[in-house]
Amino acid sequence: MAESQQLQSTTDSQQPQTTVETGNNLPVAIIHRLPTFNFSFSWAKGIVNPIESSDPLYPIHRLSARAVIVLGPSPLKSEHLDQYPSVECIFGTSAGVDHIDLAECRRRNIRVTSAGDAFSEDGADYAIGLLIDVLRLVSASDRFVRAGLWPVEGIYPLGNKVGGKRVGIVGLGSIGSLVAKRLEPFGCTIGYTSRNKKPQLHYQFYSTALDLATNSDALIVCCALTEKTRHVINHDVMKALGKRGILVNVGRGALVDEKELVKLLVGGELGGAGLDVFEDEPQVPRELFTMDNVVLSPHKAIATTEAIEGLIQLVIGNMKAFFSNKPLLSELNLHD
Amino acid sequence: MAESQQLQSTTDSQQPQTTVETGNNLPVAIIHRLPTFNFSFSWAKGIVNPIESSDPLYPIHRLSARAVIVLGPSPLKSEHLDQYPSVECIFGTSAGVDHIDLAECRRRNIRVTSAGDAFSEDGADYAIGLLIDVLRLVSASDRFVRAGLWPVEGIYPLGNKVGGKRVGIVGLGSIGSLVAKRLEPFGCTIGYTSRNKKPQLHYQFYSTALDLATNSDALIVCCALTEKTRHVINHDVMKALGKRGILVNVGRGALVDEKELVKLLVGGELGGAGLDVFEDEPQVPRELFTMDNVVLSPHKAIATTEAIEGLIQLVIGNMKAFFSNKPLLSELNLHD
Repeated sequence: MAESQQLQSTTDSQQPQTTVETGNNLPVAIIHRLPTFNFSFSWAKGIVNPIESSDPLYPIHRLSARAVIVLGPSPLKSEHLDQYPSVECIFGTSAGVDHIDLAECRRRNIRVTSAGDAFSEDGADYAIGLLIDVLRLVSASDRFVRAGLWPVEGIYPLGNKVGGKRVGIVGLGSIGSLVAKRLEPFGCTIGYTSRNKKPQLHYQFYSTALDLATNSDALIVCCALTEKTRHVINHDVMKALGKRGILVNVGRGALVDEKELVKLLVGGELGGAGLDVFEDEPQVPRELFTMDNVVLSPHKAIATTEAIEGLIQLVIGNMKAFFSNKPLLSELNLHD
Repeated sequence: MAESQQLQSTTDSQQPQTTVETGNNLPVAIIHRLPTFNFSFSWAKGIVNPIESSDPLYPIHRLSARAVIVLGPSPLKSEHLDQYPSVECIFGTSAGVDHIDLAECRRRNIRVTSAGDAFSEDGADYAIGLLIDVLRLVSASDRFVRAGLWPVEGIYPLGNKVGGKRVGIVGLGSIGSLVAKRLEPFGCTIGYTSRNKKPQLHYQFYSTALDLATNSDALIVCCALTEKTRHVINHDVMKALGKRGILVNVGRGALVDEKELVKLLVGGELGGAGLDVFEDEPQVPRELFTMDNVVLSPHKAIATTEAIEGLIQLVIGNMKAFFSNKPLLSELNLHD
């Protein structure tokens, strides 16, 4: 959610410095969003003529528009696509695309772009930040100091070393690969599970999340959410990770069976968790609020000022490419 | 302080598995510590006959003892050394040795060991954790979620990207070098200041902290505290780091002019800080308690369960080496 929520933060200063003429000659792009996502998209002007559903001409434009811009994770299902019978390209603005009915897009021969790698580095950085935080109790220590407890209690419990840990990456895609690269100098042993083994990499491949968890001290979840990956981190996987095992999730909340996660954390059967995403955002299970072995984050792993600027340039580039019949910059392959 | 405070946590399970005979035949080692450091040192038994100042035989042993074990940062000054006229070797248990009068040890021809690299990896890991935390607002986000503000406020402010930042390392010693190595895959540009330029490294050298700060987005302070480095991070250095600049300190509190630091943070003239150490520990300036661009930590960067275990093995190794006339494992060079 964060990527779209945050779009407003930099948009108004992001009016593109292009020389494309403005006015009615520009191609139309429908702005598709949940009503709650009331954010500026001034950065799109100058490239396209953005039309909102509130626009008096929307009923006409929606019939002929060749492009739709989807803000953040606004759902775009079959019934929405029916509203845009001429659409040829969907410009996504998020890294995950589980909110878009890709099967339906494929069936209708609609192309889809995503945020591509615009957020990958930030996602990887944040995953490392959460892992260090949970192992070394950074946020918990900060709470301890701010509560004035240092002079009173003196000692704060020891954390655990990052180096030497076996870290399992669930989904060795653009974020996962960068996580692995960052973990190497820490002296971690890296394993992964992924749709396919990547023979060019020297990391240990496991064919299931359960095998990976059995052989890991920490799991970092950063795969895409699909019907196949929903609850890929289930009770058995977390049990296999074990009492000292740590789960970091920067993917999507529904990749993890959250009820089981909470149960295992409450029962001390999982060592700790660093969670940027949740199943029912912005709701976070309250049982986690008092745990020092848990770090909670409001779906912001991929959002930085710099990443949003990069995303805007990417979407602009995709739109320019589409309307001039050039290859798109971050098109999804819907035919795999 | 943390390294000594934490010694108790693992000591009792760390009885060394050696076959050295116990009893009065073992060489004496005086345990030197602040009265408040009332920690177990059962791990030392079996290697030496550890004598506390409370021991009835202390007045005799202190005169003939060849070895002193200094627990944590307990001050060991000239007047203390006078108590141990036969001492030949001081076994330190901390990474920093500013609490030991090294000049006096040199004059008296006393050898000194430190914790060596036992804590370096953890110190570097924690520095990276603090840097990511301050840039990406990890602890602050965790507070936001725990306060129940996510459903209410929706958006949490954007953080800043780690990649692309110019990170200046103050003191490219054992911790600083590991910090640099870890930062490389994040895409940071690394500079440093150090007593001497290290021509074998490709990082940019600056001869002063001021020059380094002028050319950095973040400073990571991890040098030793000496009379020369006290307040090496002064008003001018922090002003040069600037309004968006971030200061991380995992060295010693007195490396930074803390009053100036607080003033600049309060005035918005410094971007943020990740602080594991303070000038008057365990006192932390209260002005920092309400700042979201600051992460506070109770001097624990170098303390993990694994590091303490490593330290114990190192001190045991040093003691065995000393009493069998073999080279010490982590002896300080006092003659540079």
